[in-house]
Amino acid sequence: MQDGAALPTREDCIAMDRADPLASRRERFVLPQGVVYLGGNSIGAMAKAVAARVTRATEVEWAQGLKRSWNDAGWFTLPAKTGGKIGKLIGAPEGSVIVADTISVNLFKLLSAAVDLVPDRKVILSDSGNFPSDLYVAQGLIARLGGGLTLKVVEPEGVEAAIDETTGVLMLTGVDYRTGRIHDMKWLTAKAHAAGAVTVWDLAHTAGAMVVDVTAARADFAHGCTYKYLNGGPGSPAFVYVRPDLISKVRSPISGWWGHEAPFAFDLDFRPAPGITRMQCGTQPILTLSALDAALDEFAGIDMAAVRAKSVKLTALFQQLVTARCGKHGLRVSGPADPNLRGSHLSLHCPEGFAVMRALVAEGVIGDFRAPDVIRFGFAPLYNGFTDAWDAANALARILDERRWDTPQFRAREAVT
Amino acid sequence: MQDGAALPTREDCIAMDRADPLASRRERFVLPQGVVYLGGNSIGAMAKAVAARVTRATEVEWAQGLKRSWNDAGWFTLPAKTGGKIGKLIGAPEGSVIVADTISVNLFKLLSAAVDLVPDRKVILSDSGNFPSDLYVAQGLIARLGGGLTLKVVEPEGVEAAIDETTGVLMLTGVDYRTGRIHDMKWLTAKAHAAGAVTVWDLAHTAGAMVVDVTAARADFAHGCTYKYLNGGPGSPAFVYVRPDLISKVRSPISGWWGHEAPFAFDLDFRPAPGITRMQCGTQPILTLSALDAALDEFAGIDMAAVRAKSVKLTALFQQLVTARCGKHGLRVSGPADPNLRGSHLSLHCPEGFAVMRALVAEGVIGDFRAPDVIRFGFAPLYNGFTDAWDAANALARILDERRWDTPQFRAREAVT
Repeated sequence: MQDGAALPTREDCIAMDRADPLASRRERFVLPQGVVYLGGNSIGAMAKAVAARVTRATEVEWAQGLKRSWNDAGWFTLPAKTGGKIGKLIGAPEGSVIVADTISVNLFKLLSAAVDLVPDRKVILSDSGNFPSDLYVAQGLIARLGGGLTLKVVEPEGVEAAIDETTGVLMLTGVDYRTGRIHDMKWLTAKAHAAGAVTVWDLAHTAGAMVVDVTAARADFAHGCTYKYLNGGPGSPAFVYVRPDLISKVRSPISGWWGHEAPFAFDLDFRPAPGITRMQCGTQPILTLSALDAALDEFAGIDMAAVRAKSVKLTALFQQLVTARCGKHGLRVSGPADPNLRGSHLSLHCPEGFAVMRALVAEGVIGDFRAPDVIRFGFAPLYNGFTDAWDAANALARILDERRWDTPQFRAREAVT
Repeated sequence: MQDGAALPTREDCIAMDRADPLASRRERFVLPQGVVYLGGNSIGAMAKAVAARVTRATEVEWAQGLKRSWNDAGWFTLPAKTGGKIGKLIGAPEGSVIVADTISVNLFKLLSAAVDLVPDRKVILSDSGNFPSDLYVAQGLIARLGGGLTLKVVEPEGVEAAIDETTGVLMLTGVDYRTGRIHDMKWLTAKAHAAGAVTVWDLAHTAGAMVVDVTAARADFAHGCTYKYLNGGPGSPAFVYVRPDLISKVRSPISGWWGHEAPFAFDLDFRPAPGITRMQCGTQPILTLSALDAALDEFAGIDMAAVRAKSVKLTALFQQLVTARCGKHGLRVSGPADPNLRGSHLSLHCPEGFAVMRALVAEGVIGDFRAPDVIRFGFAPLYNGFTDAWDAANALARILDERRWDTPQFRAREAVT
């Protein structure tokens, strides 16, 4: 799609949806009437099967089964079971992924383990496009450990050049939460390894939307959340991957009973469980894990290459439409112009972006705003279609053309969007 | 109730339930037909209001509200809101308790903060009756930090005598998970303070069952789970208390964005939020937190002194009945004989306890087994009654008298009970 070509009409988009082999997946999700939901990069939509599963977890497993459900309903096995399903989506072998805790907690565990693997190196290298919380976790670990550890933050484009013989841990996020810019996991991991460093990859905006293969990339550690493209629901727990040949050398600093070799022996001394189980620590939220377990089944039989191909087409179409129709209002793409170099969302620098996004949400087009001026639209290929992209671009153009955003209500900053 | 007195009959127990001012609370919980549930010390029963609340969280807040619900449904405020409700039950002032993560993760945060407050002290003092996972967390922190820190584990009865000028942190659990033995929080905290140490109290078996006042006790730090007597559901997140005059000096080692002063500013540098919010780190499980929020409302208007008084009566009655009817089979109380010196469960040393508990569960009386020979029965005063105690003791006596436990099925150790 070139800038000079005629813009696709809404009818063209309806036809593209009809021809889309993934289109039928949309019916498996609940999507509110009258809403174009482009917030799946923040919190994924709910699969219809999830509601019944959560009801079963509360009304049958908890209320009727009570503590018997730890065994009878398989509660104990949910972290490994959901981890196994995620592993298939990121190229991780069976038994190398587990679901537990939050990204912050897991990154703390992994960074702690990573610096232990390279005791003579003092630099954790990251970039300014990383999700800030990842940088915060590194700062917290460094403040706690001391010993000369430092966090070096460079521009995203400068990461490769900054890898050197001082680098201990390369800590990066696969897809930039703002610009969508992709880091080449395989390439940068190879560079890190050549320099004697280990890698910790955040796949929050990657898993469920991109083709990723942690095995082929030789990633040492990876982790990510499950509430974005994996649709696990608000605050569903995060996942952790450790390359199998490393796991026996890895220790989590947070050694709780779920990571013990024999949790019900109630020994007074900690012995790490074999395998990825050692990265668990405490009792996990079962209702939320049950929702995630059901949500992940929506990926059964799905070819991630097809998901990625559709994602690229969706963001390219949206880019074409908003560039053509909204460019005159000062809108410009944040991040790479080539959709193949971005993840599954499109971010736009937008003057008065805060008010514009609030006006969009009021009209049923849900994206989000990231300070200072970015409006962000996520495309989840399992339930978003080409008509969504058209409708969102159309609403955005109308709001800008008619200055509908310019009201005290939409400018008021009391809310987080 | 003296040993020589006539044993209460089932009719006596029914009359006691009729006279019990808390008895009407039972109807507010779902309890399975034909079951005597004495596992509330492990996972509390589900309040009826919880099911509707979780359905709302999934089908309305998530499925329809989607990311808008972070504000519109108050998702962001749930950790502080549920923390405030728990604070009222443990004597904590408004704004000093927050719900987040698991016990293991929170204890790691608190212990890390605690050792920072006493940099010249190298000993974390605990006891062998502590829940093993708490000891594991201390071991993990020590392995991570080094610097001469050590964990000193003494017998529960020897804690007070072991507090000395080397003690930096006194890490104890209010109620022993096996014996039910109570540590005197106020007394031991005063002893620790007099010696220059700080205290970290685990209230897992305390909150919701006991009269506890962290303010009066001058406890420095406290934490606990919410899925036992607080009835938050399987794996509901844990709570953290920091004494208000300490919080500005306290740093969590796991510094994630939910603990940031301005999480949505997306600054690259961490600045801890004022107050207890700084003890958060990552995005919390909202479905599970919603269940907890509804469950905690069952404590509204409840006098914890009345809860404790009923708890003592329940465990005393059960003790009287099993001692009289099962003593001949070698059953004996584990822990203090005086119910006033125990928490809300009764543990019994029981030959062949594993098989006996499995036989009990098969007959609908649900307690649990803790190696090597302890069977454990929790009494949750909001929904357990005196007739429950009678029925459980009666079933236990019959199983022992008739050796119903002595089958290959009940002896087989493939399950965790």
